[in-house]
Amino acid sequence: MKNDTQNAPIGVFDSGIGGLTVVKELIRNLPGEDIIYLGDTARVPYGTKSRRTVIAYSHSNTEFLISKGVKLLVVACNTASSVSIPSLRSEFDIPVIGVIEPGAKKAVSVTKTEKIGIIGTPSTINSGAYKSAIESLNPNIEVISKACPLFVPLADEGWIEGQITESIAEKYLSPFKETGIDVLVLGCTHYPLLKNTIQKIMGDQITLVDSAQETAALIKDILIEKNLLNDKGTQSDREFYLTDVSDTFLSVAGRFLGEKINKIEMVDIVGTTSLPSP
Amino acid sequence: MKNDTQNAPIGVFDSGIGGLTVVKELIRNLPGEDIIYLGDTARVPYGTKSRRTVIAYSHSNTEFLISKGVKLLVVACNTASSVSIPSLRSEFDIPVIGVIEPGAKKAVSVTKTEKIGIIGTPSTINSGAYKSAIESLNPNIEVISKACPLFVPLADEGWIEGQITESIAEKYLSPFKETGIDVLVLGCTHYPLLKNTIQKIMGDQITLVDSAQETAALIKDILIEKNLLNDKGTQSDREFYLTDVSDTFLSVAGRFLGEKINKIEMVDIVGTTSLPSP
Repeated sequence: MKNDTQNAPIGVFDSGIGGLTVVKELIRNLPGEDIIYLGDTARVPYGTKSRRTVIAYSHSNTEFLISKGVKLLVVACNTASSVSIPSLRSEFDIPVIGVIEPGAKKAVSVTKTEKIGIIGTPSTINSGAYKSAIESLNPNIEVISKACPLFVPLADEGWIEGQITESIAEKYLSPFKETGIDVLVLGCTHYPLLKNTIQKIMGDQITLVDSAQETAALIKDILIEKNLLNDKGTQSDREFYLTDVSDTFLSVAGRFLGEKINKIEMVDIVGTTSLPSP
Repeated sequence: MKNDTQNAPIGVFDSGIGGLTVVKELIRNLPGEDIIYLGDTARVPYGTKSRRTVIAYSHSNTEFLISKGVKLLVVACNTASSVSIPSLRSEFDIPVIGVIEPGAKKAVSVTKTEKIGIIGTPSTINSGAYKSAIESLNPNIEVISKACPLFVPLADEGWIEGQITESIAEKYLSPFKETGIDVLVLGCTHYPLLKNTIQKIMGDQITLVDSAQETAALIKDILIEKNLLNDKGTQSDREFYLTDVSDTFLSVAGRFLGEKINKIEMVDIVGTTSLPSP
């Protein structure tokens, strides 16, 4: 029975395809693990939706992944992590890992000025989740937050560098320059794609914290600690499910994952809203 | 019974709040009409989703408005108009008006070069709906289309003018300049907010067609022709429903409508996905 759990897949969900940046880091850190990814592309984005709605969507995503037998759940979406984790942990029995805590922990360990910047979607920033997580680790740290709504569509459009992207980044990020922060947390799974531009605008003296990297590292620690590392020794398997499949998503998914996706399946979990034939 | 229908409200749905630009034009053209608006903000945007999913969402939105007793349905969303109109017309008995046909008709009546440009979301452009509508009116007209995915988030962010918006507009629109078009259709309800910037980039010799204006004018004609103009003579009433209410939407809705919204109600039509308490 124990071996069944040990060699079960890791489940990852995101509102869309941004969470593939977390999968990319999981593959890098844990090449022997099977991964099942669910992107809720029929209801993306979560970042502009209410707390109540995001929690409901997170539960239905989790139920789907649990039905696939996952041993650990990764909420690879900052918005869902910021509002849904307590509710998911109380309802489901497997370990539930979000992207907020690992990013917050890393930022706290790195800062010397005790001033940390956070960027994310409006709902992640409004939730105050990073601020709370950081202050619970060290109440002396000052947190300065800023929502950057255009970064997600820029990453989706593939405009990850160049004059327009730099102008937008300058507009969002220049208020940080007078604050004395020495760490900036990329609090959205899309933002690692814009890392070069963000670093260029902020300057090399600012450390960027990539929540996707920190989350993957934490999951490796947890699997080792719980003796749950996959040891079957065969080629690892990855399955990708989306709640809606459109050309737009397929064309950008590879950019987020950093490798080609061979197979995507569509799954209908959007309630019983009756879907007429295409 | 006839009077009941005559004085019934007009129903309008959109994927989000962009359709309020159509409501704004309806109010200007038909100040005596009651209007019920439904913004499907829990599932916004439609522009990146599949045909099958957009049709399903359009049907559930329409069922809600029909349950409110509307006399005419306006699909104030270019994506939904481009894929859902035939299916809605076959299922529901009231007149169903989309935003594609009125915009196409106006463009055809205005062009002298017989070359028309269309801008919209990826799914509206990929659907080819404007191209088909224009070619069915005049097969000699050449249609040149371009998706402009960043225009919606720019309008939502309120960056409707200035250097960044002009640079983005220049990048999207410059390919039109060598084509000989004399008309450009704003094929997305968000784009009228960017009208000044788009006109500046395209130059005054290009006529911009605003589908929202043309749709409102057509609806006035239809109500007159069917003898359905509201004649109760009392103050007209407007009701606004959203499938999800977040601070983000409330803060920008007024900008789209051009007046303050006094009352928004939330309605749950997202299937039976169980919603835990907030």
